Amino acid sequence: MTTQNPTAAVLVIGDEILSGRTKDTNTNTIARFLTAMGIDLMEARVVGDRPEQIMEALNALRAGHDYVFTTGGIGPTHDDITADCVAQAFGVPLPEHPEAVAILERRYGDDFNAARRRMARIPVGASLIANPVTEAPGFQLGNVFVMAGVPAIMQGMLQDVAPRLKTGAVVHSGTLKVSGVGEGTVAEILAEAARTNRALSFGSYPFGAGTQGEFGTNLVVRGQDVSAVAAAVQDLQWTLIEAGVSVTPL
Amino acid sequence: MTTQNPTAAVLVIGDEILSGRTKDTNTNTIARFLTAMGIDLMEARVVGDRPEQIMEALNALRAGHDYVFTTGGIGPTHDDITADCVAQAFGVPLPEHPEAVAILERRYGDDFNAARRRMARIPVGASLIANPVTEAPGFQLGNVFVMAGVPAIMQGMLQDVAPRLKTGAVVHSGTLKVSGVGEGTVAEILAEAARTNRALSFGSYPFGAGTQGEFGTNLVVRGQDVSAVAAAVQDLQWTLIEAGVSVTPL
Repeated sequence: MTTQNPTAAVLVIGDEILSGRTKDTNTNTIARFLTAMGIDLMEARVVGDRPEQIMEALNALRAGHDYVFTTGGIGPTHDDITADCVAQAFGVPLPEHPEAVAILERRYGDDFNAARRRMARIPVGASLIANPVTEAPGFQLGNVFVMAGVPAIMQGMLQDVAPRLKTGAVVHSGTLKVSGVGEGTVAEILAEAARTNRALSFGSYPFGAGTQGEFGTNLVVRGQDVSAVAAAVQDLQWTLIEAGVSVTPL
Repeated sequence: MTTQNPTAAVLVIGDEILSGRTKDTNTNTIARFLTAMGIDLMEARVVGDRPEQIMEALNALRAGHDYVFTTGGIGPTHDDITADCVAQAFGVPLPEHPEAVAILERRYGDDFNAARRRMARIPVGASLIANPVTEAPGFQLGNVFVMAGVPAIMQGMLQDVAPRLKTGAVVHSGTLKVSGVGEGTVAEILAEAARTNRALSFGSYPFGAGTQGEFGTNLVVRGQDVSAVAAAVQDLQWTLIEAGVSVTPL
Protein backbone atom coordinates (compact mmCIF):
# COMPACT_ATOMS: atom_id res chain seq x y z
CA MET A 1 0.00 0.00 0.00
CA THR A 2 1.61 3.26 -1.11
CA THR A 3 0.17 6.59 -0.09
CA GLN A 4 1.06 10.23 -0.53
CA ASN A 5 -0.63 11.03 2.76
CA PRO A 6 0.87 13.31 5.37
CA THR A 7 2.83 11.34 7.96
CA ALA A 8 2.88 11.71 11.72
CA ALA A 9 4.55 10.47 14.88
CA VAL A 10 3.45 10.42 18.52
CA LEU A 11 5.80 11.18 21.42
CA VAL A 12 4.44 10.18 24.84
CA ILE A 13 6.40 11.80 27.68
CA GLY A 14 6.35 10.55 31.25
CA ASP A 15 8.08 8.27 33.74
CA GLU A 16 4.67 7.06 34.90
CA ILE A 17 4.07 5.31 31.58
CA LEU A 18 7.46 3.56 31.64
CA SER A 19 7.07 2.42 35.25
CA GLY A 20 3.71 0.89 34.35
CA ARG A 21 1.87 3.02 36.88
CA THR A 22 -0.20 4.66 34.14
CA LYS A 23 -1.51 3.05 30.95
CA ASP A 24 -1.05 5.19 27.87
CA THR A 25 -4.37 5.49 26.02
CA ASN A 26 -3.48 8.68 24.15
CA THR A 27 -1.55 6.92 21.39
CA ASN A 28 -4.62 4.92 20.42
CA THR A 29 -6.84 8.02 20.53
CA ILE A 30 -4.44 9.96 18.31
CA ALA A 31 -4.03 6.96 15.97
CA ARG A 32 -7.79 6.76 15.37
CA PHE A 33 -8.05 10.54 14.99
CA LEU A 34 -5.30 10.55 12.34
CA THR A 35 -6.59 7.49 10.48
CA ALA A 36 -9.96 9.20 10.09
CA MET A 37 -8.22 12.25 8.59
CA GLY A 38 -6.07 10.34 6.11
CA ILE A 39 -2.85 11.07 7.99
CA ASP A 40 -0.54 8.08 8.34
CA LEU A 41 0.80 7.51 11.87
CA MET A 42 4.22 6.00 11.20
CA GLU A 43 5.74 5.70 14.65
CA ALA A 44 5.12 6.24 18.36
CA ARG A 45 7.65 6.58 21.15
CA VAL A 46 7.42 6.71 24.91
CA VAL A 47 10.23 8.49 26.77
CA GLY A 48 10.80 9.37 30.41
CA ASP A 49 11.11 12.75 32.12
CA ARG A 50 14.72 13.17 30.97
CA PRO A 51 15.54 16.32 28.96
CA GLU A 52 18.20 14.76 26.73
CA GLN A 53 15.96 11.84 25.82
CA ILE A 54 12.95 14.05 25.14
CA MET A 55 14.92 16.42 22.90
CA GLU A 56 16.66 13.64 21.00
CA ALA A 57 13.37 11.87 20.27
CA LEU A 58 11.61 15.12 19.40
CA ASN A 59 14.32 16.18 16.95
CA ALA A 60 14.38 12.77 15.27
CA LEU A 61 10.61 12.63 14.91
CA ARG A 62 10.03 16.21 13.74
CA ALA A 63 12.71 15.81 11.06
CA GLY A 64 11.19 12.59 9.81
CA HIS A 65 7.46 13.32 9.74
CA ASP A 66 5.01 16.00 8.68
CA TYR A 67 3.53 16.21 12.17
CA VAL A 68 4.56 15.27 15.71
CA PHE A 69 2.07 15.05 18.56
CA THR A 70 3.43 15.06 22.09
CA THR A 71 1.44 14.25 25.23
CA GLY A 72 2.38 14.84 28.83
CA GLY A 73 4.62 17.06 30.92
CA ILE A 74 2.94 20.46 30.51
CA GLY A 75 1.42 20.81 33.99
CA PRO A 76 2.52 23.08 36.85
CA THR A 77 4.84 20.73 38.76
CA HIS A 78 8.62 20.48 38.75
CA ASP A 79 8.54 17.25 36.72
CA ASP A 80 6.65 18.97 33.88
CA ILE A 81 9.54 19.79 31.56
CA THR A 82 8.09 19.34 28.08
CA ALA A 83 7.82 23.05 27.22
CA ASP A 84 11.43 23.62 28.33
CA CYS A 85 12.61 20.70 26.18
CA VAL A 86 10.64 21.76 23.10
CA ALA A 87 11.95 25.32 23.35
CA GLN A 88 15.50 24.06 23.73
CA ALA A 89 15.12 21.57 20.86
CA PHE A 90 13.98 24.43 18.59
CA GLY A 91 16.57 26.83 20.04
CA VAL A 92 14.04 29.49 21.05
CA PRO A 93 13.33 31.23 24.40
CA LEU A 94 10.41 30.25 26.66
CA PRO A 95 8.84 33.46 27.99
CA GLU A 96 5.38 33.88 29.49
CA HIS A 97 2.79 34.21 26.73
CA PRO A 98 0.42 37.16 27.40
CA GLU A 99 -2.67 35.32 26.19
CA ALA A 100 -1.79 32.23 28.25
CA VAL A 101 -1.24 34.44 31.32
CA ALA A 102 -4.64 36.07 30.75
CA ILE A 103 -6.38 32.69 30.41
CA LEU A 104 -4.81 31.36 33.61
CA GLU A 105 -5.34 34.59 35.60
CA ARG A 106 -9.01 34.51 34.68
CA ARG A 107 -9.30 30.87 35.69
CA TYR A 108 -7.30 30.86 38.92
CA GLY A 109 -7.77 34.40 40.27
CA ASP A 110 -6.01 34.62 43.63
CA ASP A 111 -4.74 31.04 43.22
CA PHE A 112 -2.63 31.98 40.19
CA ASN A 113 0.64 31.18 41.95
CA ALA A 114 4.21 30.70 40.74
CA ALA A 115 3.71 27.03 39.94
CA ARG A 116 0.69 27.77 37.75
CA ARG A 117 2.57 30.62 36.05
CA ARG A 118 4.91 27.91 34.68
CA MET A 119 2.01 26.78 32.48
CA ALA A 120 1.96 30.20 30.78
CA ARG A 121 5.50 29.75 29.44
CA ILE A 122 5.23 29.16 25.69
CA PRO A 123 8.14 28.94 23.21
CA VAL A 124 8.60 32.00 21.02
CA GLY A 125 6.87 31.50 17.69
CA ALA A 126 4.31 29.02 18.99
CA SER A 127 0.54 29.37 18.75
CA LEU A 128 -1.71 28.22 21.59
CA ILE A 129 -3.85 25.09 21.55
CA ALA A 130 -7.14 25.59 23.40
CA ASN A 131 -7.87 23.39 26.41
CA PRO A 132 -11.64 23.12 26.84
CA VAL A 133 -11.33 21.18 30.11
CA THR A 134 -8.93 22.97 32.47
CA GLU A 135 -8.00 25.93 30.19
CA ALA A 136 -4.19 25.73 30.58
CA PRO A 137 -3.23 25.73 26.90
CA GLY A 138 -1.03 23.47 24.83
CA PHE A 139 0.89 24.90 21.91
CA GLN A 140 1.95 24.32 18.32
CA LEU A 141 5.51 25.13 17.31
CA GLY A 142 6.31 24.40 13.68
CA ASN A 143 5.10 20.87 12.97
CA VAL A 144 5.01 19.89 16.66
CA PHE A 145 1.76 19.87 18.65
CA VAL A 146 2.32 19.85 22.40
CA MET A 147 -0.64 18.53 24.36
CA ALA A 148 -1.55 17.49 27.88
CA GLY A 149 -1.21 13.93 29.15
CA VAL A 150 -4.61 13.69 30.88
CA PRO A 151 -6.73 11.87 28.28
CA ALA A 152 -9.84 14.06 28.59
CA ILE A 153 -7.74 17.20 28.11
CA MET A 154 -5.71 15.71 25.26
CA GLN A 155 -8.93 14.75 23.45
CA GLY A 156 -10.25 18.28 23.88
CA MET A 157 -7.04 19.74 22.47
CA LEU A 158 -7.25 17.51 19.38
CA GLN A 159 -10.44 19.34 18.41
CA ASP A 160 -8.50 22.60 18.23
CA VAL A 161 -5.64 20.91 16.35
CA ALA A 162 -7.79 19.24 13.67
CA PRO A 163 -8.43 22.30 11.44
CA ARG A 164 -4.68 23.02 11.31
CA LEU A 165 -3.80 19.71 9.64
CA LYS A 166 -3.55 18.83 5.95
CA THR A 167 -5.68 15.77 5.38
CA GLY A 168 -4.97 12.89 3.04
CA ALA A 169 -6.82 10.07 1.37
CA VAL A 170 -8.70 8.17 4.04
CA VAL A 171 -7.82 4.51 4.32
CA HIS A 172 -10.91 2.31 4.09
CA SER A 173 -11.07 -1.16 5.52
CA GLY A 174 -13.19 -4.26 5.43
CA THR A 175 -13.01 -7.13 7.90
CA LEU A 176 -13.83 -10.82 7.62
CA LYS A 177 -14.14 -12.84 10.79
CA VAL A 178 -12.95 -16.41 10.40
CA SER A 179 -14.15 -18.62 13.25
CA GLY A 180 -12.75 -21.80 14.68
CA VAL A 181 -9.50 -21.94 12.74
CA GLY A 182 -6.14 -20.35 13.43
CA GLU A 183 -4.19 -17.92 11.30
CA GLY A 184 -2.11 -20.73 9.82
CA THR A 185 -5.15 -22.27 8.14
CA VAL A 186 -5.93 -19.13 6.13
CA ALA A 187 -2.41 -17.74 5.78
CA GLU A 188 -1.78 -19.01 2.23
CA ILE A 189 -5.14 -17.72 0.97
CA LEU A 190 -4.40 -14.34 2.52
CA ALA A 191 -0.87 -14.22 1.12
CA GLU A 192 -2.19 -15.00 -2.37
CA ALA A 193 -4.76 -12.18 -2.07
CA ALA A 194 -1.97 -9.82 -1.02
CA ARG A 195 0.18 -10.88 -3.98
CA THR A 196 -2.59 -10.17 -6.48
CA ASN A 197 -3.70 -6.83 -4.94
CA ARG A 198 -0.52 -4.83 -4.43
CA ALA A 199 -2.43 -1.55 -3.90
CA LEU A 200 -4.15 -2.95 -0.81
CA SER A 201 -2.84 -4.21 2.52
CA PHE A 202 -3.98 -7.48 4.07
CA GLY A 203 -3.67 -8.08 7.80
CA SER A 204 -4.46 -11.05 10.00
CA TYR A 205 -5.35 -10.62 13.68
CA PRO A 206 -6.02 -13.71 15.78
CA PHE A 207 -8.47 -13.51 18.66
CA GLY A 208 -9.44 -15.76 21.54
CA ALA A 209 -6.06 -17.51 21.91
CA GLY A 210 -5.57 -18.62 25.50
CA THR A 211 -9.21 -18.18 26.43
CA GLN A 212 -12.05 -20.68 26.79
CA GLY A 213 -14.29 -18.73 24.40
CA GLU A 214 -14.56 -18.48 20.63
CA PHE A 215 -11.27 -18.31 18.77
CA GLY A 216 -10.37 -17.41 15.23
CA THR A 217 -8.84 -14.70 13.09
CA ASN A 218 -9.97 -11.33 11.79
CA LEU A 219 -8.76 -10.67 8.27
CA VAL A 220 -8.57 -6.96 7.45
CA VAL A 221 -8.25 -5.49 3.95
CA ARG A 222 -7.21 -1.83 3.78
CA GLY A 223 -6.70 0.68 1.01
CA GLN A 224 -7.56 4.15 -0.24
CA ASP A 225 -9.91 2.94 -3.01
CA VAL A 226 -13.14 2.00 -1.26
CA SER A 227 -14.51 -0.07 -4.16
CA ALA A 228 -11.23 -1.96 -4.55
CA VAL A 229 -11.35 -2.79 -0.84
CA ALA A 230 -14.96 -4.00 -1.13
CA ALA A 231 -14.16 -6.13 -4.18
CA ALA A 232 -11.12 -7.68 -2.51
CA VAL A 233 -13.11 -8.48 0.63
CA GLN A 234 -15.77 -10.20 -1.47
CA ASP A 235 -13.18 -12.19 -3.46
CA LEU A 236 -11.48 -13.23 -0.22
CA GLN A 237 -14.79 -14.28 1.31
CA TRP A 238 -15.59 -16.54 -1.66
CA THR A 239 -12.14 -18.08 -1.67
CA LEU A 240 -12.47 -18.87 2.03
CA ILE A 241 -15.96 -20.36 1.59
CA GLU A 242 -14.66 -22.53 -1.27
CA ALA A 243 -11.89 -23.71 1.05
CA GLY A 244 -14.49 -24.77 3.60
CA VAL A 245 -13.72 -22.02 6.14
CA SER A 246 -16.49 -20.44 8.22
CA VAL A 247 -16.42 -16.70 7.50
CA THR A 248 -18.57 -13.70 8.51
CA PRO A 249 -18.21 -10.13 7.18
CA LEU A 250 -17.92 -7.65 10.07
CA MET B 1 17.02 9.25 41.28
CA THR B 2 20.16 7.46 40.10
CA THR B 3 20.23 3.70 39.70
CA GLN B 4 22.68 1.09 38.50
CA ASN B 5 19.81 -1.11 37.42
CA PRO B 6 19.73 -2.97 34.11
CA THR B 7 17.93 -0.95 31.44
CA ALA B 8 15.39 -2.09 28.89
CA ALA B 9 13.37 -0.96 25.89
CA VAL B 10 10.15 -2.24 24.34
CA LEU B 11 9.57 -2.45 20.59
CA VAL B 12 5.94 -2.98 19.57
CA ILE B 13 5.63 -4.11 15.94
CA GLY B 14 2.43 -3.85 13.93
CA ASP B 15 0.42 -1.65 11.56
CA GLU B 16 -2.70 -2.44 13.55
CA ILE B 17 -1.40 -0.48 16.54
CA LEU B 18 -0.54 2.58 14.43
CA SER B 19 -3.88 2.57 12.63
CA GLY B 20 -5.64 2.53 15.99
CA ARG B 21 -7.43 -0.72 15.22
CA THR B 22 -5.72 -2.48 18.13
CA LYS B 23 -4.82 -0.99 21.51
CA ASP B 24 -1.36 -1.92 22.72
CA THR B 25 -1.56 -3.31 26.24
CA ASN B 26 1.73 -5.21 26.10
CA THR B 27 3.90 -2.20 26.89
CA ASN B 28 2.14 -1.69 30.20
CA THR B 29 2.36 -5.40 31.05
CA ILE B 30 6.10 -5.45 30.32
CA ALA B 31 6.59 -2.16 32.21
CA ARG B 32 5.05 -3.60 35.38
CA PHE B 33 6.94 -6.87 34.96
CA LEU B 34 10.26 -5.02 34.69
CA THR B 35 9.54 -2.58 37.51
CA ALA B 36 8.89 -5.52 39.83
CA MET B 37 12.30 -6.99 38.87
CA GLY B 38 14.29 -3.78 39.34
CA ILE B 39 14.91 -3.37 35.61
CA ASP B 40 14.43 0.20 34.36
CA LEU B 41 12.29 0.51 31.24
CA MET B 42 13.80 3.55 29.52
CA GLU B 43 11.92 3.74 26.24
CA ALA B 44 9.17 2.16 24.16
CA ARG B 45 8.59 2.41 20.44
CA VAL B 46 5.79 1.35 18.13
CA VAL B 47 6.69 0.72 14.49
CA GLY B 48 4.74 -0.60 11.51
CA ASP B 49 5.22 -3.72 9.42
CA ARG B 50 8.08 -2.15 7.46
CA PRO B 51 11.41 -4.03 7.46
CA GLU B 52 13.67 -0.96 7.33
CA GLN B 53 11.84 0.72 10.17
CA ILE B 54 11.82 -2.42 12.33
CA MET B 55 15.56 -3.05 11.80
CA GLU B 56 16.54 0.57 12.41
CA ALA B 57 14.57 0.72 15.67
CA LEU B 58 15.82 -2.69 16.79
CA ASN B 59 19.46 -1.81 16.17
CA ALA B 60 19.13 1.54 17.97
CA LEU B 61 17.43 -0.02 20.99
CA ARG B 62 19.65 -3.09 21.35
CA ALA B 63 22.75 -0.92 21.24
CA GLY B 64 21.40 1.43 23.89
CA HIS B 65 19.90 -0.90 26.49
CA ASP B 66 20.68 -4.10 28.34
CA TYR B 67 17.48 -5.75 27.12
CA VAL B 68 15.01 -5.26 24.28
CA PHE B 69 11.56 -6.86 24.29
CA THR B 70 9.69 -7.03 21.00
CA THR B 71 6.03 -7.95 20.59
CA GLY B 72 4.15 -8.84 17.43
CA GLY B 73 4.80 -10.16 13.96
CA ILE B 74 5.82 -13.77 14.66
CA GLY B 75 2.69 -15.54 13.43
CA PRO B 76 2.20 -17.61 10.26
CA THR B 77 0.90 -14.94 7.88
CA HIS B 78 2.72 -12.96 5.17
CA ASP B 79 2.67 -9.78 7.27
CA ASP B 80 4.56 -11.52 10.11
CA ILE B 81 8.09 -10.37 9.34
CA THR B 82 9.67 -9.88 12.75
CA ALA B 83 11.88 -13.00 12.69
CA ASP B 84 13.17 -12.05 9.22
CA CYS B 85 13.98 -8.54 10.41
CA VAL B 86 15.71 -9.67 13.61
CA ALA B 87 17.84 -12.17 11.69
CA GLN B 88 18.80 -9.54 9.14
CA ALA B 89 19.54 -6.94 11.83
CA PHE B 90 21.93 -9.40 13.50
CA GLY B 91 23.30 -10.59 10.14
CA VAL B 92 22.51 -14.27 10.73
CA PRO B 93 20.52 -16.85 8.68
CA LEU B 94 16.94 -17.85 9.56
CA PRO B 95 16.66 -21.62 9.12
CA GLU B 96 14.01 -23.92 10.56
CA HIS B 97 14.86 -24.78 14.17
CA PRO B 98 14.52 -28.56 14.78
CA GLU B 99 12.98 -28.13 18.23
CA ALA B 100 10.50 -25.54 16.96
CA VAL B 101 9.57 -27.86 14.08
CA ALA B 102 9.01 -30.71 16.54
CA ILE B 103 6.81 -28.55 18.78
CA LEU B 104 4.68 -27.38 15.87
CA GLU B 105 4.46 -30.83 14.24
CA ARG B 106 3.21 -32.25 17.51
CA ARG B 107 0.64 -29.49 17.88
CA TYR B 108 -0.69 -29.28 14.33
CA GLY B 109 -0.28 -32.84 13.00
CA ASP B 110 -1.74 -32.96 9.49
CA ASP B 111 -2.46 -29.20 9.64
CA PHE B 112 1.26 -28.36 9.87
CA ASN B 113 1.29 -26.55 6.52
CA ALA B 114 3.78 -24.24 4.82
CA ALA B 115 2.40 -21.13 6.53
CA ARG B 116 2.79 -22.69 9.97
CA ARG B 117 6.30 -23.87 9.08
CA ARG B 118 7.23 -20.16 8.86
CA MET B 119 6.83 -20.04 12.66
CA ALA B 120 9.62 -22.63 13.03
CA ARG B 121 12.19 -20.30 11.44
CA ILE B 122 14.51 -19.09 14.20
CA PRO B 123 17.69 -17.00 13.73
CA VAL B 124 20.93 -18.94 14.14
CA GLY B 125 22.25 -18.54 17.68
CA ALA B 126 18.85 -17.89 19.25
CA SER B 127 17.29 -19.90 22.06
CA LEU B 128 13.54 -20.59 22.12
CA ILE B 129 11.04 -18.88 24.41
CA ALA B 130 8.26 -21.24 25.49
CA ASN B 131 4.68 -20.37 24.55
CA PRO B 132 2.33 -21.98 27.08
CA VAL B 133 -0.79 -20.90 25.16
CA THR B 134 -0.46 -21.85 21.48
CA GLU B 135 3.04 -23.44 21.62
CA ALA B 136 4.60 -21.58 18.64
CA PRO B 137 7.76 -20.34 20.33
CA GLY B 138 9.34 -16.91 20.58
CA PHE B 139 13.10 -16.60 20.77
CA GLN B 140 15.98 -14.81 22.46
CA LEU B 141 18.89 -13.63 20.34
CA GLY B 142 21.60 -11.82 22.28
CA ASN B 143 19.86 -9.19 24.40
CA VAL B 144 16.68 -9.23 22.30
CA PHE B 145 13.58 -11.15 23.38
CA VAL B 146 11.12 -11.71 20.53
CA MET B 147 7.59 -12.39 21.72
CA ALA B 148 4.07 -12.71 20.32
CA GLY B 149 1.69 -9.78 20.06
CA VAL B 150 -1.40 -11.54 21.44
CA PRO B 151 -1.43 -10.38 25.07
CA ALA B 152 -2.22 -13.77 26.65
CA ILE B 153 0.64 -15.39 24.73
CA MET B 154 3.05 -12.52 25.46
CA GLN B 155 2.29 -12.79 29.17
CA GLY B 156 2.94 -16.52 29.07
CA MET B 157 6.26 -15.98 27.31
CA LEU B 158 7.38 -13.47 29.96
CA GLN B 159 7.33 -16.30 32.50
CA ASP B 160 9.96 -18.16 30.49
CA VAL B 161 11.98 -14.97 30.01
CA ALA B 162 12.07 -13.93 33.68
CA PRO B 163 14.78 -16.34 34.91
CA ARG B 164 17.12 -15.18 32.12
CA LEU B 165 17.23 -11.57 33.31
CA LYS B 166 19.63 -9.89 35.70
CA THR B 167 17.56 -8.10 38.30
CA GLY B 168 18.26 -4.77 39.96
CA ALA B 169 17.23 -2.84 43.01
CA VAL B 170 13.47 -2.67 43.08
CA VAL B 171 12.01 0.83 43.08
CA HIS B 172 9.60 1.31 45.97
CA SER B 173 6.86 3.88 45.94
CA GLY B 174 4.40 5.59 48.23
CA THR B 175 1.37 7.58 47.15
CA LEU B 176 -0.54 10.43 48.76
CA LYS B 177 -3.94 11.32 47.37
CA VAL B 178 -4.71 15.02 47.54
CA SER B 179 -8.41 15.72 47.05
CA GLY B 180 -10.23 18.78 45.80
CA VAL B 181 -7.22 20.82 44.76
CA GLY B 182 -5.28 20.86 41.51
CA GLU B 183 -1.62 20.16 40.90
CA GLY B 184 -0.79 23.86 40.98
CA THR B 185 -1.83 24.14 44.63
CA VAL B 186 0.69 21.55 45.81
CA ALA B 187 3.38 22.06 43.15
CA GLU B 188 5.66 24.24 45.27
CA ILE B 189 5.49 21.88 48.26
CA LEU B 190 6.30 18.96 45.98
CA ALA B 191 9.16 20.81 44.29
CA GLU B 192 10.65 21.66 47.68
CA ALA B 193 10.44 17.99 48.74
CA ALA B 194 12.19 17.01 45.49
CA ARG B 195 14.94 19.59 46.08
CA THR B 196 15.69 18.26 49.56
CA ASN B 197 15.56 14.53 48.63
CA ARG B 198 17.74 14.16 45.56
CA ALA B 199 17.92 10.37 45.87
CA LEU B 200 14.16 10.07 45.43
CA SER B 201 11.81 11.00 42.60
CA PHE B 202 8.57 12.92 43.15
CA GLY B 203 5.74 12.74 40.64
CA SER B 204 2.37 14.42 40.43
CA TYR B 205 -0.55 12.82 38.59
CA PRO B 206 -3.86 14.71 38.40
CA PHE B 207 -7.10 12.76 38.27
CA GLY B 208 -10.72 13.59 37.60
CA ALA B 209 -10.07 16.57 35.30
CA GLY B 210 -12.95 16.99 32.88
CA THR B 211 -15.27 14.70 34.81
CA GLN B 212 -18.15 15.39 37.18
CA GLY B 213 -16.61 13.23 39.91
CA GLU B 214 -13.93 13.76 42.51
CA PHE B 215 -10.82 15.55 41.31
CA GLY B 216 -7.37 15.98 42.75
CA THR B 217 -3.79 14.85 42.42
CA ASN B 218 -1.86 11.73 43.35
CA LEU B 219 1.62 12.50 44.61
CA VAL B 220 4.03 9.60 44.18
CA VAL B 221 7.42 9.26 45.88
CA ARG B 222 9.78 6.66 44.41
CA GLY B 223 13.21 5.36 45.28
CA GLN B 224 15.29 2.27 45.93
CA ASP B 225 15.54 2.84 49.71
CA VAL B 226 12.21 1.75 51.15
CA SER B 227 12.67 3.54 54.47
CA ALA B 228 13.73 6.77 52.78
CA VAL B 229 10.58 6.60 50.65
CA ALA B 230 8.41 6.03 53.72
CA ALA B 231 10.04 8.92 55.58
CA ALA B 232 9.65 11.27 52.63
CA VAL B 233 5.98 10.33 52.24
CA GLN B 234 5.38 11.06 55.93
CA ASP B 235 7.20 14.41 55.74
CA LEU B 236 5.24 15.35 52.65
CA GLN B 237 1.97 14.38 54.30
CA TRP B 238 2.67 16.63 57.32
CA THR B 239 3.70 19.56 55.14
CA LEU B 240 0.47 19.24 53.16
CA ILE B 241 -1.65 19.02 56.31
CA GLU B 242 0.06 22.12 57.70
CA ALA B 243 -0.77 23.90 54.42
CA GLY B 244 -4.43 23.02 54.93
CA VAL B 245 -4.60 20.46 52.11
CA SER B 246 -6.78 17.34 52.43
CA VAL B 247 -4.50 14.31 52.02
CA THR B 248 -4.93 10.53 52.25
CA PRO B 249 -2.14 7.93 52.06
CA LEU B 250 -2.95 5.27 49.42
